[in-house]
Amino acid sequence: MSAQALGRLSRGPHPVLFQLLYEPGFAQDRQHVLPHLLRIDAAHVVMLAHTRILPKETAAQLLAVNRELAARLAAGESLFEPPPVHRGLYLLYESEYIQRLGGEVGGAAHVARSRNDINATVTRMRLREGLREVLGEGLRLAEALHTVAREHSRTLMSGFTHQQPAQPSTFGHYLAGVLSELTRSLGWLSDTWPGLNRCPMGAAAGVGTHFPIDTARVARLLGFDAPVGNSVDAVGSRDFAVQVLSGLSLLGTLLTRLAADLQSWASTAYGFLGWPDELVSTSSIMPQKRNAFVLENIRGQATKATGYLMNALMGLKSAPFTNSVEVSSEVSSALWPALGCSRTALTLSTLLISQVQVNAPAMRQFLVGEDTVMTALADHLVARHGLAFRSAHEVVSKLASRKVEPDLTPATARALLEPLLREVLGRPIALEEAELAPLLDPEGCMRAAAHGGGPAPEAVQAHLESLGGEHARLRERLAGWQSQLGSADAALETESAAFR
Amino acid sequence: MSAQALGRLSRGPHPVLFQLLYEPGFAQDRQHVLPHLLRIDAAHVVMLAHTRILPKETAAQLLAVNRELAARLAAGESLFEPPPVHRGLYLLYESEYIQRLGGEVGGAAHVARSRNDINATVTRMRLREGLREVLGEGLRLAEALHTVAREHSRTLMSGFTHQQPAQPSTFGHYLAGVLSELTRSLGWLSDTWPGLNRCPMGAAAGVGTHFPIDTARVARLLGFDAPVGNSVDAVGSRDFAVQVLSGLSLLGTLLTRLAADLQSWASTAYGFLGWPDELVSTSSIMPQKRNAFVLENIRGQATKATGYLMNALMGLKSAPFTNSVEVSSEVSSALWPALGCSRTALTLSTLLISQVQVNAPAMRQFLVGEDTVMTALADHLVARHGLAFRSAHEVVSKLASRKVEPDLTPATARALLEPLLREVLGRPIALEEAELAPLLDPEGCMRAAAHGGGPAPEAVQAHLESLGGEHARLRERLAGWQSQLGSADAALETESAAFR
Amino acid sequence: MSAQALGRLSRGPHPVLFQLLYEPGFAQDRQHVLPHLLRIDAAHVVMLAHTRILPKETAAQLLAVNRELAARLAAGESLFEPPPVHRGLYLLYESEYIQRLGGEVGGAAHVARSRNDINATVTRMRLREGLREVLGEGLRLAEALHTVAREHSRTLMSGFTHQQPAQPSTFGHYLAGVLSELTRSLGWLSDTWPGLNRCPMGAAAGVGTHFPIDTARVARLLGFDAPVGNSVDAVGSRDFAVQVLSGLSLLGTLLTRLAADLQSWASTAYGFLGWPDELVSTSSIMPQKRNAFVLENIRGQATKATGYLMNALMGLKSAPFTNSVEVSSEVSSALWPALGCSRTALTLSTLLISQVQVNAPAMRQFLVGEDTVMTALADHLVARHGLAFRSAHEVVSKLASRKVEPDLTPATARALLEPLLREVLGRPIALEEAELAPLLDPEGCMRAAAHGGGPAPEAVQAHLESLGGEHARLRERLAGWQSQLGSADAALETESAAFR
Amino acid sequence: MSAQALGRLSRGPHPVLFQLLYEPGFAQDRQHVLPHLLRIDAAHVVMLAHTRILPKETAAQLLAVNRELAARLAAGESLFEPPPVHRGLYLLYESEYIQRLGGEVGGAAHVARSRNDINATVTRMRLREGLREVLGEGLRLAEALHTVAREHSRTLMSGFTHQQPAQPSTFGHYLAGVLSELTRSLGWLSDTWPGLNRCPMGAAAGVGTHFPIDTARVARLLGFDAPVGNSVDAVGSRDFAVQVLSGLSLLGTLLTRLAADLQSWASTAYGFLGWPDELVSTSSIMPQKRNAFVLENIRGQATKATGYLMNALMGLKSAPFTNSVEVSSEVSSALWPALGCSRTALTLSTLLISQVQVNAPAMRQFLVGEDTVMTALADHLVARHGLAFRSAHEVVSKLASRKVEPDLTPATARALLEPLLREVLGRPIALEEAELAPLLDPEGCMRAAAHGGGPAPEAVQAHLESLGGEHARLRERLAGWQSQLGSADAALETESAAFR
Repeated sequence: MSAQALGRLSRGPHPVLFQLLYEPGFAQDRQHVLPHLLRIDAAHVVMLAHTRILPKETAAQLLAVNRELAARLAAGESLFEPPPVHRGLYLLYESEYIQRLGGEVGGAAHVARSRNDINATVTRMRLREGLREVLGEGLRLAEALHTVAREHSRTLMSGFTHQQPAQPSTFGHYLAGVLSELTRSLGWLSDTWPGLNRCPMGAAAGVGTHFPIDTARVARLLGFDAPVGNSVDAVGSRDFAVQVLSGLSLLGTLLTRLAADLQSWASTAYGFLGWPDELVSTSSIMPQKRNAFVLENIRGQATKATGYLMNALMGLKSAPFTNSVEVSSEVSSALWPALGCSRTALTLSTLLISQVQVNAPAMRQFLVGEDTVMTALADHLVARHGLAFRSAHEVVSKLASRKVEPDLTPATARALLEPLLREVLGRPIALEEAELAPLLDPEGCMRAAAHGGGPAPEAVQAHLESLGGEHARLRERLAGWQSQLGSADAALETESAAFR
Repeated sequence: MSAQALGRLSRGPHPVLFQLLYEPGFAQDRQHVLPHLLRIDAAHVVMLAHTRILPKETAAQLLAVNRELAARLAAGESLFEPPPVHRGLYLLYESEYIQRLGGEVGGAAHVARSRNDINATVTRMRLREGLREVLGEGLRLAEALHTVAREHSRTLMSGFTHQQPAQPSTFGHYLAGVLSELTRSLGWLSDTWPGLNRCPMGAAAGVGTHFPIDTARVARLLGFDAPVGNSVDAVGSRDFAVQVLSGLSLLGTLLTRLAADLQSWASTAYGFLGWPDELVSTSSIMPQKRNAFVLENIRGQATKATGYLMNALMGLKSAPFTNSVEVSSEVSSALWPALGCSRTALTLSTLLISQVQVNAPAMRQFLVGEDTVMTALADHLVARHGLAFRSAHEVVSKLASRKVEPDLTPATARALLEPLLREVLGRPIALEEAELAPLLDPEGCMRAAAHGGGPAPEAVQAHLESLGGEHARLRERLAGWQSQLGSADAALETESAAFR
Repeated sequence: MSAQALGRLSRGPHPVLFQLLYEPGFAQDRQHVLPHLLRIDAAHVVMLAHTRILPKETAAQLLAVNRELAARLAAGESLFEPPPVHRGLYLLYESEYIQRLGGEVGGAAHVARSRNDINATVTRMRLREGLREVLGEGLRLAEALHTVAREHSRTLMSGFTHQQPAQPSTFGHYLAGVLSELTRSLGWLSDTWPGLNRCPMGAAAGVGTHFPIDTARVARLLGFDAPVGNSVDAVGSRDFAVQVLSGLSLLGTLLTRLAADLQSWASTAYGFLGWPDELVSTSSIMPQKRNAFVLENIRGQATKATGYLMNALMGLKSAPFTNSVEVSSEVSSALWPALGCSRTALTLSTLLISQVQVNAPAMRQFLVGEDTVMTALADHLVARHGLAFRSAHEVVSKLASRKVEPDLTPATARALLEPLLREVLGRPIALEEAELAPLLDPEGCMRAAAHGGGPAPEAVQAHLESLGGEHARLRERLAGWQSQLGSADAALETESAAFR
Repeated sequence: MSAQALGRLSRGPHPVLFQLLYEPGFAQDRQHVLPHLLRIDAAHVVMLAHTRILPKETAAQLLAVNRELAARLAAGESLFEPPPVHRGLYLLYESEYIQRLGGEVGGAAHVARSRNDINATVTRMRLREGLREVLGEGLRLAEALHTVAREHSRTLMSGFTHQQPAQPSTFGHYLAGVLSELTRSLGWLSDTWPGLNRCPMGAAAGVGTHFPIDTARVARLLGFDAPVGNSVDAVGSRDFAVQVLSGLSLLGTLLTRLAADLQSWASTAYGFLGWPDELVSTSSIMPQKRNAFVLENIRGQATKATGYLMNALMGLKSAPFTNSVEVSSEVSSALWPALGCSRTALTLSTLLISQVQVNAPAMRQFLVGEDTVMTALADHLVARHGLAFRSAHEVVSKLASRKVEPDLTPATARALLEPLLREVLGRPIALEEAELAPLLDPEGCMRAAAHGGGPAPEAVQAHLESLGGEHARLRERLAGWQSQLGSADAALETESAAFR
């Protein structure tokens, strides 16, 4: 970081810089950066006092102002009304101390640190928040999917491939499939935490410091697991931003796939799904319409993370590996809107999943005449009558072409199959209607698909159980983070309060 | 578009939809959408009256309200204070008329149109504005580059390839190269106008209308060149968004390349360039620093269009070719921040180019010992002494290895070259110091590079002249648009005022 | 450009460089670069002789070898068998001349040029070919769409918004909408030609040359419109690559949208479309399947240009504005696979459009009970009976809720509407069955939608006519290019042959 | 998967499909898919025999052919010469068995499986290979960086921010920073393994199977950790592809940053670095050049993964969550070239790092007059003389402006500082030359920066030690995978051989 009115410069920033660079971000910074800045400053001063780099009394004065500001902020007060021209929040923050305590005391905290390491630390702290929120929202969607999948683990629906009816399955089985990927994606996102939760403080401007600081103490007081080990890395790398954006991008594609399927099935051509009035819209011109338009917003919001990921990758490309505004500010700036859009997409998905109205009869009716039991029939000829799969496939293909009625009764099936078997195999095979009946019934067929992750309800329920276990582990992980951050806040408060 | 409380729906929107979809965009819409909505509404009503679809009196009442609202908006009044829950600006706008004129009159304008075509029309009108602004800003950068390139068309500087000094050139020649691409990029961006400036009104919900409307009149009153010819295309396509975003993305890469070069040359290792105090920063920790950090903001802002382009392309992928929120709202939403970031990058670039401080002596000094005249020397041996280029290349390579002093005097050059020529050619060639002198002087060398678009000052000035002609044509094009839009506004006002 | 064994280097390339950088591209270069290299070399030598930079006799010897190599290549011979280690095609090409004519003559052409400008020139020439091919393929798709749209301009089909049936339309109207955007996209792609068709030769290594070359002659002999005006621009810019990739990316999104719609409508849920056996697949496991899987390949291939566009933009980011491998080789390398994938997607789309089997009865049957005539009914109440649109919308919404049968007869409609009108308006309105009949018939409804680009067959046919005019103009443009390139080739041959 | 000549289709594929879809990938498939297909087939048959779904004798016949084919392939034989028209490798593979064993036996293996699950399984197996290779290559780069960083942990070099000299550091400290991020990135990439290493076999066409298969056995024999739990997920998800591509993209940005820094420092303006002749190039026109062009290839290759990542994300967008060619073939196809480009970039980086020639005197010389010790001086005034940092910053800024010689001797520093201190503080402070000497010497300064991850050599060495530990853990992880795959291959061979 680097934009202040000190040092060798004789003048303030050019008005265009103020207007395009400092002014636009100020309100956001005051809301999202200031709380972390106050924490960082407190932890740094506490540490400086403990290492005797700052006299106790100086630290006490600085921390008193810090506590007061934090209290006023927590009370909802709008701190640091910006003057007509400035160079951003940080320098206003600093001058507050100087104005109140004089330069000698008010400027004393600025040893063994720089805006570079502070900026990197704020980004990580702010991202911890955002990551926790998006994971929490993701877990709510997981729970909704889990509930609805379980409820509909017996709701017969065609499985599809290439958008054509394939074999009998259930709505619950489909949702459990989506939930499987969601669970992994949340896990992958949460795996970015350990890399993210390292503290850059002490790296100063990328070359560390001569002062014998205690980086471990600062890290601990700010809820980090440990300090970053190399100061160039601390200020120059933002790999955690790419990791989180990659996680959001992947998650987003899953939400678009779910939304696309739901919207197909909600179309009148299928009529499988619907939503209550408050979740659909009609048309300003077509009075009969019920549009599940929210699914389109979901897709729109869910894909935005990909654009931000592209920006972050492009921003990093050929940037010197050191501190630079291009990386520290511009790349990081992709995170916040990406997190927002992803949360919106997750919240809307949760809403739509939890309120979906399933038209089970329409799903069942759709199977009529769609030949989705043909694979099961072929399998049966293999398993019970010893046909090679190839012969069975041939026999059943011919059956599908010859039958007249959309669906077969056991009697018709037998009447058509026996001559076909003779024709293909060159030898007679006798079938019984009783053996054919369950195969010709899509529901029976679905229940039999109990292997290889298939839709048989017990298999799906068992799988949901194991996914539930993973959700519990994720929730615990989140709770662990929350407790670590909470303890750090408490410790910081205590250590700060000790200086009075 | 499709999100209203009419028709077959019994309830208003779910509070989550309000909070995530309608509320966040409201302030933006009021600022950027409402002015266009007022125009569209006026043009539509005028047309409905002219085609006798609406009675003159109804039209007069509607237009009176429209003119009043437009006047209040122009006066800076904040119209349409949003109620606690709503479904967006458009429906509030509609109810204003109904509340004031009653349903029969107030709702009468809603024939032969839909939110679909209105939305598409607003996007195009708003983008016309954004495009004009960004092109204006781009032309300002072009002018700044033109001025500085002309000023420095004699300022000797090394040309570079692969980041190594190559041959003598000038700073002006480099800038003229950048300006060449900039000029093309602005031209390419401006070529999106004819496709953009077609009016979707009349397409209604994508299936046109039974009413015998006059789409050409509406188009003309809104400053469009003509109506769109197919109603599905009118509501379903947003190709112009991708075109503009592609133009901004390409422009952005050029700005990053310029900024990267300027930052290299501003580094103390080169010391070629600098800026006044109000455009650099020092460090909060390193008192000696003068950082040209704005170049990093430029790169950060300039690349953002690429992320938004990615979003637009991804949003369009596999979206049904018809009206959908995913395309009409979500894809279009990428335009506005992309235009903003691109403008910022352009403005900052203009500022830095127009205020750059060139250290000509440092540029000249850098050439000492860099052997950048070697190509010219080899060329001379070919041109004057009939060597094959290959032999000349070999002789000069050996010269570069054997010489002791960084740069050669004519005398030393002659003393070294003559034996080398004998060695390589097997025959003696006599050189004169007078012929070598201009070749060994980087400035002479640069002046001689008058062909193939080289840096000889007259050649560069002539080329700048021709680029200036293209800028003039671009400015005329922009002025033409402005005049077309101005005339349309005036015509609309007149035609509206005729109904009282 | 920069990778040869000459000059100050004592050793050949490291074996890893050969294996990873020179070897992999060699076969491609021999096929796609060599023909252009031969042309460039011939044009350059012809020019050098005309400007007396080279003696006529030297030029004659060089051109004789050039003509011989070109003839052997044209005859299908595989020139330049690569030795075990080399630094790419160009240097092998150069040594061929030196080996055959000796260094003095064989190396004589290498004045006033460099691999930098040659490389840039080859890329533009190769891209001209690729662009012409992809535009040709695009025009074939346009013709197929035109034909099928015309054929089905009376084939009644529901229009859709938000994937729900909206109002009666035709399959031809939909295709004409897609064709509108396709036509614009091909136009946009073709607009990249003038920027692309400028000749970089003479820029040498980015600083032009001292030799009084005739760049206009070289440009003309290679089919270019003119030389590039600035040598840094000539070797450093690749904006045309981004322009073409942007065009392909946009085109690709349209193909995905078309493919997504066609696949929905080919699903058994709609049953609107199908293809002959040789264009669908069955399943290795499900004997009943007919999968329109090619639509999935189309989407996959069509989106690839976007990835390559992102690569090109990312490659340009922060690259110095001068010649560099990153830009000249790496960015350009994105073009060739992108053109290939786009052509594949276009060819497959043309195949599927031209062979589509339309199930018109299913399309018509789908409209039953979908209430798609409700907008027309409301419009009628406005137009004939003077209702405000709002009241009409309300009346028709209630009608849609109250009716029992899926579709209304004129008699039932009248019976239901008259009380509703009284209820809503507070006054009676008398309707006639004869006026209602055409409105309640989707076909009548579609025919009446003749305004605002709607589906009325005559309107669609007239619009197709005008699109056909634009295709003719595009074909002429392509033919003009072909003729320009053909003339240039002929002129080059004549001018080269004059030297013997 | 879905592309065969069986079932209800009367004809083979259209010749265009063959030419564009089946033919181009065949050679690749034969090389990269066939080995895995043979393994999968063997494991599947072994399992079918163990579960008695296939008779032992049938299994034995199938496995005999399988072993024979595997042996011939291992011996380098080119199996399955493609006929003039076909539908891809898989169907040729299947027919081989049928031709040799007859339909009853040869086609018998095709139960409880489909091309869908086979395809998903092959992709995962092939990606395991690619991932292991790229991680291996990444570890080689890590080792090279580790070695060179250690070697140069005392090589004084300026640290930079915003491309300006900042404070004294070392080349080793910089490299250790890069290595820190590389180590994390390799770790992140390797974390994709557990999700990747799950076996989809048994999912068949996405709806599992009625056959009581033993998916755990198949998984184990193929080296997977476990089967996938849901069959839709098994065939429909490719999240692992996005994860790996994200990892490669992130890794790529780091390589571009390293390459950009190295190229700056290799420029003659810095002169810090160089490479031996076989790793640089000269110019075809400029005899004096030594271009580190390979760094440009590195950047070009390193960024390609990003384009492929965008393709994968775009391919997934709105694709139905089930098997489709768009996902199973097209999205996966992005993996192989991305892995190739990333490996190339890593290999080239390793080569350049391991052979870099460091010009330590030039690095040291660069520090003269760059004021990089000013921070240390200010820190000292704070630490020893009790100034507030703000006052110290002010004093030192003025010192930087007032000094005449580029660098200060202790005597001059004292002479200038004492009056400044009085001026700023209003009280005298006495300094000694002895205390100033180490601060004014960049080397002393660097040695003192021992905190916060700074460049003091012992600190860097300790940090490198800990990174070395992480590399060892990564190597172990890779070795573990290799051993798991090796054991699986051996077990498969044994179990297959048991059937004879």
